[in-house]
Amino acid sequence: MIPVEEIRTTALRALTKGGLSLDHATIQLDLLLDAEMRGVPSHGLLRVPRVIERVANGVTDPTTKGAQSWRGRAFLDVDGKQGLGPVVALLALETARDRAAETGSCVVAVRNCDHLGMLAFYAEKLASEGKVLLGMTISEALVHPFGGRQAMLGTNPITIGVPAEPLPFVFDMATSLVSMGKIHDHAHRGVSIPEGWALDAEGNSTTDPDAAKLGAIAPFGGAKGYGLGLAFEVLVSALTGSAIGTAVKGTLDSMNPCNKGDVFVVMEPALSVVPLVSGFLEDIRHSAPVDPAEPVRIPGDRAVATRERASREGLTVASEVWDRIRLLAEV
Amino acid sequence: MIPVEEIRTTALRALTKGGLSLDHATIQLDLLLDAEMRGVPSHGLLRVPRVIERVANGVTDPTTKGAQSWRGRAFLDVDGKQGLGPVVALLALETARDRAAETGSCVVAVRNCDHLGMLAFYAEKLASEGKVLLGMTISEALVHPFGGRQAMLGTNPITIGVPAEPLPFVFDMATSLVSMGKIHDHAHRGVSIPEGWALDAEGNSTTDPDAAKLGAIAPFGGAKGYGLGLAFEVLVSALTGSAIGTAVKGTLDSMNPCNKGDVFVVMEPALSVVPLVSGFLEDIRHSAPVDPAEPVRIPGDRAVATRERASREGLTVASEVWDRIRLLAEV
Repeated sequence: MIPVEEIRTTALRALTKGGLSLDHATIQLDLLLDAEMRGVPSHGLLRVPRVIERVANGVTDPTTKGAQSWRGRAFLDVDGKQGLGPVVALLALETARDRAAETGSCVVAVRNCDHLGMLAFYAEKLASEGKVLLGMTISEALVHPFGGRQAMLGTNPITIGVPAEPLPFVFDMATSLVSMGKIHDHAHRGVSIPEGWALDAEGNSTTDPDAAKLGAIAPFGGAKGYGLGLAFEVLVSALTGSAIGTAVKGTLDSMNPCNKGDVFVVMEPALSVVPLVSGFLEDIRHSAPVDPAEPVRIPGDRAVATRERASREGLTVASEVWDRIRLLAEV
Repeated sequence: MIPVEEIRTTALRALTKGGLSLDHATIQLDLLLDAEMRGVPSHGLLRVPRVIERVANGVTDPTTKGAQSWRGRAFLDVDGKQGLGPVVALLALETARDRAAETGSCVVAVRNCDHLGMLAFYAEKLASEGKVLLGMTISEALVHPFGGRQAMLGTNPITIGVPAEPLPFVFDMATSLVSMGKIHDHAHRGVSIPEGWALDAEGNSTTDPDAAKLGAIAPFGGAKGYGLGLAFEVLVSALTGSAIGTAVKGTLDSMNPCNKGDVFVVMEPALSVVPLVSGFLEDIRHSAPVDPAEPVRIPGDRAVATRERASREGLTVASEVWDRIRLLAEV
């Protein structure tokens, strides 16, 4: 267990040595550390070295906050200028939040921006500020269509944040059955993956994680989940004009400028809905479970509990990730 | 096979005899007939008698178009005044479409409005007019949480429409594994349902469709699909202030005013994205299939082909539905 403050200090030093201002390093690390603390290491600290490599390779500009312009009073266009995902996105969401307070809603369409990371980070922030947030992004093609053999679609997550008490409701899921991070983790541990998770490079079903890394992940939920991921890909590209399908690059590698799009819709809730929503969530938590030992869960509850434990007890970080970050901090 | 024009004339007569103006009857029937022709009979002609019953019972006002007001320049609040779903929703979408042309986007939050029917109808219309549409609605609680035994959530569909050629991209799915209509259909035919589709009234897994009618349908896609349906329910209620969970009434019965909410977001696409989106959809259609005899499908393609065939060859309508409509037309 490493105390969170020790991780924060070390990773901040690594990021600032890598060319980020303290302000931008703090924003980037807040996002990655939040993912790590919520139990989503695929979107956590392992991306610290990736960010530094991308800056060193000149495909990420750590100084820009992106350029904002208005397609209309309720549609913010953002050219990310190859900036850091959370730096560009958080500033855009602040602008949209203030506009939505006046217009009732505001769409944000981001292009040319680095990986936004775990979308729950943004949904929790906006919902804590009393807004409803819907967010979608796409990634490099990693997912095969239902009935198909080739990776044609991103993992295309959606997030929804809604004000509630005692905590905002924050939902965040990818439309792939599993993350590529989970497949890498199985490969790393030398453990086979379950049948149905992935195809190899030839499009045949495989339980070998190393073969799966070169192939395609299944969509979740069969034909429906495939349709949903496809619809998000089409919607995001149509609103941003960004790359689509196999043309998407730069969300996973350190060599390519990132050319995918991201979309948010910031909306004003109806008056006094917090008791309505919060009561409903409580009703679900207390509804009859299949297994009396396993109460019905609300998405996000477990992540928040995991984060609280991490902030008290510290984090277990994969040793190669932690060693790498310490090395980058000391150079 | 009954020619579509014969169905149209007969059903219009039934609806106008039931108290709808010819204008409103035409709008209501366009929606129901489109669903029937696309191969979605659960949202098709069987709802003609339901509409007439609801009007007769005084829970639907067939004359109103709802009352529109602005929460802000890009947020249209609609009180449906217990009006017909497509009458209220289409007028609201016209208002929002015109506003989005100026502001770039417009949210529509509808309350107190009857069942909107198949959401693809609205997505196809807006996408044909060059807009991107995202739509969500909720229904009476029919779906159990992942790991739960009780019906707590609606079937909560989402639709996404995006301009494309030769046809707009139109996605529409419920977040339940199957529709209650499909379970009723199995009950009607005396056929058992597959394991995993539904629970009985005590929350135990059942293959008896009559027991399932009193119980709960499974969410699609396990924990993810459950989370998605829950997130839509929370989002729709938070934006509309409408009923949530087991308090939702009037989407399936003929006795209760309809108290659920509906949400749409109308958005302006980026310039010249139609070739980008259309090319991507073509790439997917031509990507390698698992079964060489089964090309990879784009959601909506089969429904459009089914509709074209129906418009040439006519429709097979369940005889009790057709007999009922003819009876209502002749009274």
